[in-house]
Amino acid sequence: MEYPKVFEDLINSFRKLPGVGAKTAERYAYQILDLKEEQVALFLESMEKAYHTLRPCSVCGNLTDQDRCMICEDSKRDTSLICVVTKAKDIIAIEKSGTYHGVYHVLDGEISTTKGILPENIRIKELLERITPDVKELILATNPTVDGETTALYIGKLLQNHDVIVTRLAHGLPMGGHLDYADELTLIKAMEGRKKI
Amino acid sequence: MEYPKVFEDLINSFRKLPGVGAKTAERYAYQILDLKEEQVALFLESMEKAYHTLRPCSVCGNLTDQDRCMICEDSKRDTSLICVVTKAKDIIAIEKSGTYHGVYHVLDGEISTTKGILPENIRIKELLERITPDVKELILATNPTVDGETTALYIGKLLQNHDVIVTRLAHGLPMGGHLDYADELTLIKAMEGRKKI
Repeated sequence: MEYPKVFEDLINSFRKLPGVGAKTAERYAYQILDLKEEQVALFLESMEKAYHTLRPCSVCGNLTDQDRCMICEDSKRDTSLICVVTKAKDIIAIEKSGTYHGVYHVLDGEISTTKGILPENIRIKELLERITPDVKELILATNPTVDGETTALYIGKLLQNHDVIVTRLAHGLPMGGHLDYADELTLIKAMEGRKKI
Repeated sequence: MEYPKVFEDLINSFRKLPGVGAKTAERYAYQILDLKEEQVALFLESMEKAYHTLRPCSVCGNLTDQDRCMICEDSKRDTSLICVVTKAKDIIAIEKSGTYHGVYHVLDGEISTTKGILPENIRIKELLERITPDVKELILATNPTVDGETTALYIGKLLQNHDVIVTRLAHGLPMGGHLDYADELTLIKAMEGRKKI
């Protein structure tokens, strides 16, 4: 005996999600049957609408259901400051910190020798086009990983003869953690970047 | 800045799934945007259809899109043998083993003093109604847990004056495991149930 076809289809759909195996997908599919009618309706509607209306902002690449995203549309934002991130979701992380009032640029990937991702495969050309004389600083907020560092270095080199200031987010100990949990590289970076108090 | 509302709705919908927190729901929602058009269409269609067409089999409580499930409809099944399980998904597990050719009865829960689930809250009454003189054996395949054992003992007591034979799945060491990984209770059960070779 197997599941009814429609249930198999639902399980297989859940398996398309990252890190979801057969057992988890099955549990998710059973959970759908236990939801309230309006919860399922909202699930279906939001999935359908999200897929068909969300797109990258025509300026920065952030997720939006308009032509330009809420940040690019916000006249209070400082457009002389561009923070360069790997993925659109990194914007949310920075926004939550509440310390940044400039605009963003989503690269949509990082240069990677192992994955074969070249500079022309990510949105570096689009970034260069945005660097007008009005732009004072470019903050490179790619991930603190090999690929993220490579990407930051590459962009830094491209712009070394430009007037724009290029900075990189600080590396060091994460707040709230314990020193003995920090890895070696993080400790080296924390030591290098030490500050007088 | 927050996500567009439709994306927030999608994230919140994923959070309704068991064990899915904010970060995971966000990852799932982003993955939906990366799926192919036909994959999203199948996801939406199967979720909608599964929710609206699947129901418990009118005889055994198994998941079906008909009035009676595939097993109850199968004339080759031995209806003198009823295997009693906690949840519909347990049927799939037993079916995969390929050793059982009787029919099933889904209790849809287990008696639980801690969760306040009483015998009348699960499908015990429906089970008793199915025990006609044609039924020879009832295999109690509830979980090997406190609640599962309680439920099995309760049903066993109810039927002690009936002609039907009531059996319980064997407890012991799981196949393919190592002895030193087995817990104490499993080892006690394995020792008690030892057989001459």
